[in-house]
Amino acid sequence: MTTPNTASSVISSDKVNGTTVYNPAGEKLGSIDSLMIDKLSGRVRYAVMEFGGFLGIGTDRYPLPWEMLKYDPMQGGYVVSLAKEQLEGAPRYAQDTTPEYTDEYGRRVYDYYGLPYL
Amino acid sequence: MTTPNTASSVISSDKVNGTTVYNPAGEKLGSIDSLMIDKLSGRVRYAVMEFGGFLGIGTDRYPLPWEMLKYDPMQGGYVVSLAKEQLEGAPRYAQDTTPEYTDEYGRRVYDYYGLPYL
Repeated sequence: MTTPNTASSVISSDKVNGTTVYNPAGEKLGSIDSLMIDKLSGRVRYAVMEFGGFLGIGTDRYPLPWEMLKYDPMQGGYVVSLAKEQLEGAPRYAQDTTPEYTDEYGRRVYDYYGLPYL
Repeated sequence: MTTPNTASSVISSDKVNGTTVYNPAGEKLGSIDSLMIDKLSGRVRYAVMEFGGFLGIGTDRYPLPWEMLKYDPMQGGYVVSLAKEQLEGAPRYAQDTTPEYTDEYGRRVYDYYGLPYL
């Protein structure tokens, strides 16, 4: 007999990657490509969302501050308070052009989503 | 011109996974298979190390408290203060038998490595 995995307090990075991201209206925004982890504190700073393109070609990466994501067991994905239109001007990069995640870049991302960069 | 990635304060989960783990003597202990992330705090709790087996068959997974890992840029891998013999009795599981990471399990892992489970 196995207890459901949700009773566990941790989740594998393998399970996070590939998970669908929805907005509160239930529209699919994208899916998690990878996580960005603060080297010093070990905290997950960003979930990098993949969105756009076709069959993986031309998709963009959107770093989302981790605290924006709420897991919804009903939908089996993350819900982010974000309209599709808000993604249009959001910080993003192409798959092969990962920027350096400096403090300056971090501030730009957090500012865009109206969150304090600590 | 690109600045080296090490100037960045974050690292991608993609880059952590697959990274070699050494002991202070420079012996290879294994490689990182995945990360276990605390759902509530977003902190990385464990790096799950893969070790043993042959060509991926029969390898075991060893959850290591994240704070045990120090990155060594010279070796291009993580260094863990651990003798190979210490792994023999360490908490582990086969790839297809991931246990539930309850507090009880967490305490067992942290106890084994002499670390406080907070």
